[in-house]
Amino acid sequence: MQTHLFHYSQPFILESGATLPGFTLAYATAGKLNARKDNVVWFCHALTANAVVSEWWPGMIGEGLLFDPDRDFLICANMPGSCYGSTHALSINPETGLPFYHSFPHLTNRDIAATFNLLRIHLEIPQIKLILGGSLGGQQALEWAVMCPDVFDYLVPIATNAQHSPWGIAFNEAQRLAIQADQSWKKNAPDAGLEGMRAARSVALLSYRGYTAYGSTQNEPDDEKTDDFRASSYQRYQGDKLVKRFHAFAYWTLSKAMDSHNLGRGRGGIENALQKIKAKTLVIGLDSDILFPPEEQKLLASLIPDAIYREISSPYGHDGFLIETEKLTKLIREFLWSE
Amino acid sequence: MQTHLFHYSQPFILESGATLPGFTLAYATAGKLNARKDNVVWFCHALTANAVVSEWWPGMIGEGLLFDPDRDFLICANMPGSCYGSTHALSINPETGLPFYHSFPHLTNRDIAATFNLLRIHLEIPQIKLILGGSLGGQQALEWAVMCPDVFDYLVPIATNAQHSPWGIAFNEAQRLAIQADQSWKKNAPDAGLEGMRAARSVALLSYRGYTAYGSTQNEPDDEKTDDFRASSYQRYQGDKLVKRFHAFAYWTLSKAMDSHNLGRGRGGIENALQKIKAKTLVIGLDSDILFPPEEQKLLASLIPDAIYREISSPYGHDGFLIETEKLTKLIREFLWSE
Repeated sequence: MQTHLFHYSQPFILESGATLPGFTLAYATAGKLNARKDNVVWFCHALTANAVVSEWWPGMIGEGLLFDPDRDFLICANMPGSCYGSTHALSINPETGLPFYHSFPHLTNRDIAATFNLLRIHLEIPQIKLILGGSLGGQQALEWAVMCPDVFDYLVPIATNAQHSPWGIAFNEAQRLAIQADQSWKKNAPDAGLEGMRAARSVALLSYRGYTAYGSTQNEPDDEKTDDFRASSYQRYQGDKLVKRFHAFAYWTLSKAMDSHNLGRGRGGIENALQKIKAKTLVIGLDSDILFPPEEQKLLASLIPDAIYREISSPYGHDGFLIETEKLTKLIREFLWSE
Repeated sequence: MQTHLFHYSQPFILESGATLPGFTLAYATAGKLNARKDNVVWFCHALTANAVVSEWWPGMIGEGLLFDPDRDFLICANMPGSCYGSTHALSINPETGLPFYHSFPHLTNRDIAATFNLLRIHLEIPQIKLILGGSLGGQQALEWAVMCPDVFDYLVPIATNAQHSPWGIAFNEAQRLAIQADQSWKKNAPDAGLEGMRAARSVALLSYRGYTAYGSTQNEPDDEKTDDFRASSYQRYQGDKLVKRFHAFAYWTLSKAMDSHNLGRGRGGIENALQKIKAKTLVIGLDSDILFPPEEQKLLASLIPDAIYREISSPYGHDGFLIETEKLTKLIREFLWSE
């Protein structure tokens, strides 16, 4: 995919009432917008991913695959707040000439979806054939589909929900407490809170996988050990990996955005909100997902007009939305072809 | 209950090969040892509890209740490593005249059960009628019953397991990473790592309750909020509460002891180990427990000779073992009376 930048230079008023003095979106594309402008597939990425879908969803994009740049115009924008090219807490605040750091404003999924919509308008895309996303990305896809119901033909939310659950918020809060426990988090510096984020990531992994997945992949082969178990190493390894590519400001901003997710806010509840969706919708859940359990996707499908629900059987828990690409391909292909 | 101290002044060699230069156990009792010495009920407490069972298991001990001091001699010892009176990392190391702090040795459940057994011998208790415990306490009860099979008549392990799971170890490691993210943890001081432990406790709560329990108790009543959700406050509140009564050294020591739990270590596997148990055994699980899921208790019951398994239906997850006292009373009463 090729990467581009979109600069929006007007003040952008956020749901919180605060104002971003303009913003940048980094976005990646593959393929070309056709003459009828009816071949757009828009991806919404998850918490720590980026705009280059092929990097985090291998097997989904390419010649002969579900999404084929020879036919489709593929696009994904890095969500603001994230650290992969779009405006985030380490960006320079034009009003001060310094990075935002802790003064970066609170973003909601509604704010983020609104930035995507401004990019869409900038690119002169009247209609998006298909929008899809998993987890936090699925929340943003839903938010956008409620916000602009006429823009989308097809919608595929995966392993996501209408409103973030108390359990999900509690998981995020525990992670933010780990970041706050790191005294360096108080600093205005790029590496503030990194040790805390290492712990936070290892907490998140627990919710991405679950008892069964840990049992099958992190079982201890040494029956005589009393310490230094494989499961412990895995937790540290996952924390270390994220520390090399992310920062605690982005982690904080985006986990707060996830917590704020409530399609029903200001719309008279989630039932009323989901009724607005006009896209043909396929909701996909994973049977072993403990963070966004299938009951949340079933609820979505029951409230979005004429939506279909399909469940993937997977041992990978929530992470299955990134891993079960063959099963996802089959379900989405059937859904698009059945029309 | 009345509290007492037991001082063991000989060197105590640990499973790790390290030596504790003696130890103290704080223990609490109610009732009296009868002339036949056949009325002893021994409780093993869980991670952050203490020897005073009536404080953390209200409704279980008292006149006319399941455990009646007029009939039974009730005893519970604070596990070493914990901070409720027994030897722990803030105790004075007699070899240095200073607190152990980070030099406190690694304890396993086998070490801890061995200290309990020394207390039993000291008290001249030849036979324990009933031993019971939940969670980490259940692990220690099992360990002791395997170690000294002739001592126990009845055994009731609750919400516990034969070997700590990769998922359980991963949960504990994530909590220790939160403690390590707190730079104060490096200090040799009583308050080292307290902010980290605050986060760790909020992580643990996730495993003690689960999606459904959070959904029913921490649901957000304000549909217009974008931040400061009830579930977040709950996480912080639980962390704050523990910071007032525990310290990070004890948390670290005991979570490591839990990780080390493997009845099969050095005994040719858990099957061989559990076959040694001679006590009549009732294993109790909770249907909503995600940290020690019922499959672990079913495994115990299938491997302990003639053991019975009973499951409690509870919305409280793992915490149900502390809360569902009426259901526990009924099950344990039936079990003891059926003999």
